[in-house]
Amino acid sequence: MTEPYYRKINYYETDQMGIVHHSNYPRILEECRLDYMEKIGFPYKKMEEMGIIIPVLEIHCYYRQSIKYDDEVYVYPKITKLTPVRFEMEYKMYDKSKEKLLHTAVTAHCFVDSEFRPMNLKRRFPEVYEMFRENIKTD
Amino acid sequence: MTEPYYRKINYYETDQMGIVHHSNYPRILEECRLDYMEKIGFPYKKMEEMGIIIPVLEIHCYYRQSIKYDDEVYVYPKITKLTPVRFEMEYKMYDKSKEKLLHTAVTAHCFVDSEFRPMNLKRRFPEVYEMFRENIKTD
Amino acid sequence: MTEPYYRKINYYETDQMGIVHHSNYPRILEECRLDYMEKIGFPYKKMEEMGIIIPVLEIHCYYRQSIKYDDEVYVYPKITKLTPVRFEMEYKMYDKSKEKLLHTAVTAHCFVDSEFRPMNLKRRFPEVYEMFRENIKTD
Amino acid sequence: MTEPYYRKINYYETDQMGIVHHSNYPRILEECRLDYMEKIGFPYKKMEEMGIIIPVLEIHCYYRQSIKYDDEVYVYPKITKLTPVRFEMEYKMYDKSKEKLLHTAVTAHCFVDSEFRPMNLKRRFPEVYEMFRENIKTD
Repeated sequence: MTEPYYRKINYYETDQMGIVHHSNYPRILEECRLDYMEKIGFPYKKMEEMGIIIPVLEIHCYYRQSIKYDDEVYVYPKITKLTPVRFEMEYKMYDKSKEKLLHTAVTAHCFVDSEFRPMNLKRRFPEVYEMFRENIKTD
Repeated sequence: MTEPYYRKINYYETDQMGIVHHSNYPRILEECRLDYMEKIGFPYKKMEEMGIIIPVLEIHCYYRQSIKYDDEVYVYPKITKLTPVRFEMEYKMYDKSKEKLLHTAVTAHCFVDSEFRPMNLKRRFPEVYEMFRENIKTD
Repeated sequence: MTEPYYRKINYYETDQMGIVHHSNYPRILEECRLDYMEKIGFPYKKMEEMGIIIPVLEIHCYYRQSIKYDDEVYVYPKITKLTPVRFEMEYKMYDKSKEKLLHTAVTAHCFVDSEFRPMNLKRRFPEVYEMFRENIKTD
Repeated sequence: MTEPYYRKINYYETDQMGIVHHSNYPRILEECRLDYMEKIGFPYKKMEEMGIIIPVLEIHCYYRQSIKYDDEVYVYPKITKLTPVRFEMEYKMYDKSKEKLLHTAVTAHCFVDSEFRPMNLKRRFPEVYEMFRENIKTD
């Protein structure tokens, strides 16, 4: 199993409810996603340099337990779906003990070139497509 | 039909793709939601003072067209579901012409008190519940 | 005197102190600055298209009174210094009554081209330089 | 010398100039400041629980070199001034090599209680005041 992404919650991420504002979760998920891509050998910075942009098509967030300033969380990402033009990832966020589930999410992405034209990744960059394919987790 | 929420896109909401970062949409939706609650006669500030907190349980965003700095958008909100402990809202974001659909979203919320304990709104604040109920749009 | 920039405070701009987080002021100042440039006839979007980028060199913020969710503020900007390569702006933020001073700030900027090379605005775009010069307020 | 605060730049911190938006620096400084307080034995979370709030009075940022997505930076904080009611900190941000200076900043803070009333820290919490005093760096 992939190592989780570790994150400590910042003060400026809280709102006047005293908990992390819900709009900050997509940011933590992005950090986790880009960290994951680096771990599997394909840093996003390199992909952008190659002309592969991966915008977000959909995001689905399920807030189960609130999190607070100074909390430490672990996020487990996995690629769950892949086609030549699109992929999906799932995320599970746990507390410090790694036992209490705090948040789950799904993000869907497409592949576009630097002009934002849809790209068939399998055709244009088969080796990058293969890298994604090898990391699909369906369990 | 409710008047839409008007919003101009800020420079700091863009990212290095040159478009609005996806994490800013939940913020625009929140602006729209709170604006809507004010329009239907129940400003959220007043609700928090009464001890009604409305955290986000779920958020579902569908990014159809990217938006850019200085763009003007109109967001149409509506309450689509309501139970004594929970409600859902839907949002449609259009461009300046109000004809091109840019983004759709759904948010789900529960009612809690100032200690974050679940609250039966219908029982505790029937007049607030009624205000929500009157504004349900099922079309 | 220039018309002020009006702004209502958003919920997501608060932190767990219950007030607007200090990092959001530079964002409100930026909104005000870009609004001002549009008002004096030179929208920043047009400037970027011409290849004039205006990064921030310095920012100085003085937090006098805290502001809260749903507060309405007015920000008065003015250009106070200008050289062919640099300019400064000052800002005064007032409350809804326009009588209580909440915040003051200064930002310093340089002119660069789209490759981030320093630009002599007076030489390259004398008409834009002139527009800035005409709007200097030294009082 | 205190160990610096290490930070990797996130994608969502960039703007359409392709660099980190200037409003994110105060956030990185805050992370650094709170990390520093923890390192010297007084986590801010504990201080808030004791009823010591430390709002920002002033912030002064000098942007020397832009930073980009995926950059790694080191921030060196130090307490430079202290009175019973107020203190100041200075920050120097370096690049990955710790040799290239990217940014410098100063923040000023006061001590208030949980009702935002000014507090004489030396009188109310002499041991916390002492902790600050021991860490002043005037070089």
